[in-house]
Amino acid sequence: VITICLPDDGAVAALGDLSGRVHALSWNGRSPYPPGMDAVEFFVPAYRGGVVDVEVFEQMPRLRVIQLLTAGVESWLGRVPANVVLCSGRGIHGGSTAELAVAGILSHLRQLPVFAEQQRRHEWKQARTEGLREQRVLVLGAGDIGTRVANAVRVFDGEVTLVARTPRAGIHAISELPELLPAHDVVVLALPNTPETTGLADAGFLSAMPDGALLVNVSRGPLVDTQALLAELNSRRLFAFLDVFEVEPLPAEDPLWSAPNLVLTPHVGGGTLGWEQVGYRLVRNQVQRFLDGEPLANVVAAGY
Amino acid sequence: VITICLPDDGAVAALGDLSGRVHALSWNGRSPYPPGMDAVEFFVPAYRGGVVDVEVFEQMPRLRVIQLLTAGVESWLGRVPANVVLCSGRGIHGGSTAELAVAGILSHLRQLPVFAEQQRRHEWKQARTEGLREQRVLVLGAGDIGTRVANAVRVFDGEVTLVARTPRAGIHAISELPELLPAHDVVVLALPNTPETTGLADAGFLSAMPDGALLVNVSRGPLVDTQALLAELNSRRLFAFLDVFEVEPLPAEDPLWSAPNLVLTPHVGGGTLGWEQVGYRLVRNQVQRFLDGEPLANVVAAGY
Repeated sequence: VITICLPDDGAVAALGDLSGRVHALSWNGRSPYPPGMDAVEFFVPAYRGGVVDVEVFEQMPRLRVIQLLTAGVESWLGRVPANVVLCSGRGIHGGSTAELAVAGILSHLRQLPVFAEQQRRHEWKQARTEGLREQRVLVLGAGDIGTRVANAVRVFDGEVTLVARTPRAGIHAISELPELLPAHDVVVLALPNTPETTGLADAGFLSAMPDGALLVNVSRGPLVDTQALLAELNSRRLFAFLDVFEVEPLPAEDPLWSAPNLVLTPHVGGGTLGWEQVGYRLVRNQVQRFLDGEPLANVVAAGY
Repeated sequence: VITICLPDDGAVAALGDLSGRVHALSWNGRSPYPPGMDAVEFFVPAYRGGVVDVEVFEQMPRLRVIQLLTAGVESWLGRVPANVVLCSGRGIHGGSTAELAVAGILSHLRQLPVFAEQQRRHEWKQARTEGLREQRVLVLGAGDIGTRVANAVRVFDGEVTLVARTPRAGIHAISELPELLPAHDVVVLALPNTPETTGLADAGFLSAMPDGALLVNVSRGPLVDTQALLAELNSRRLFAFLDVFEVEPLPAEDPLWSAPNLVLTPHVGGGTLGWEQVGYRLVRNQVQRFLDGEPLANVVAAGY
């Protein structure tokens, strides 16, 4: 019997048939530590709890595994104790994050906000809008999010180009962006935040996008140089749909709120209703692998 | 050499290599008749021109084929002269119409209008929204539109049930709707308007949908009993996304404009930028078949 620390009773319940082999603590990251933290070997932090204070790890001297419920891991790197394995929640939120990107693209192309304004005025005014069939969509990131965005675009006859950090058959390299950007109408950022991708969408990147193109960011805020993007939005040369920001929550006085040509949402790509079913199934399977001495999935880093 | 009547010079230009085998007139349906109408054998009415006055056919005694640029043909049935074949524009607008349905579904589920309102107020307020992964989507119509809607829903792990007038493997019959409706969260109408489908979404149909479900109509207005739908919207029991209406343009005093739980667009499912490329390619291919004595595609009716 090992001791594991889970974010809530739902996660504990999802262990199902494993419950006899583990002792499960429930800790949401904010309440006082429950008794028995010193025995914890497997730790699942709360989804929206942010990164924990490193002092937490002093409470868990026997810790072996940190299993996140997010795909993004950048804020945990460097905080993981020696001999502890960090596993990402890759696959839990990818579908809903891709879905939000596609929602943003379609709403923009089909001008839903314009028609909503006409509805408020009881005004019937048909307009020829764009549609994906005429769009060249550049998807940066060929993981779960990027693949789903690409598949959705293809359903509507859009042309997709994929780019990834590891180029392979049919997938271009990041170094090819200077040639690729001018030839695409929509650019979707679906890459993790790493030293290689921070600031990727800088002034040069944005200036290579053609007039009227749409930038979509559903990954992490620091991928975009916000000042450079603001300049392109204020000149009304580019459009953007942003779900993530360099600072979150976005401060009330931030100029992005009222920038032209921008639709923004408050980092709601993941965490849609029902995500726990998928997330807790991953946790259960990882706990089983740990109990059985099998290799864990989604290993990001070990032995920092 | 045969004489054909096309809606504009773009359609004439799209004939390409066939231009030597045809004499093409350009008539938009409103301007005076061009000279030579009495020789027309193949007639393509303008896309948004509506049904022509039957007196037009008196100008075209040699008419053999009417090729529409819309998938909906109901307003033409009964007006086609004897020995004239009517062909639909099936496939021209299906992609963009399905795309609008999916845009409406995603915007509703992911609450884009709610977040747009928050953006206006500079308010960062995360909310757990629904997503397709938890949705059971009932698609009525298994043609080009319905198939694409189904494929897009599946990209995001939604559950799809297809219904068609002709049931077949994996596709349910309209007679099964009483059992199917209560088990679905989203219902998409993608059927043509025929005597069998007019008024299909009546009070009984709507009352079988579960609380909070979404009705999407991108096909033709008469499929829905508007009064019955208004009752469900006003009681805030159902939601709807409508692109088509019993009377179009929707009169300024129509109660739908300000009905709660409703998003509407002014019949813009088809006709997105670039549709002519697809439409005129169909026209070109149909003219070639006609010249070569081959069977026409998309034949709806002949010899009325």
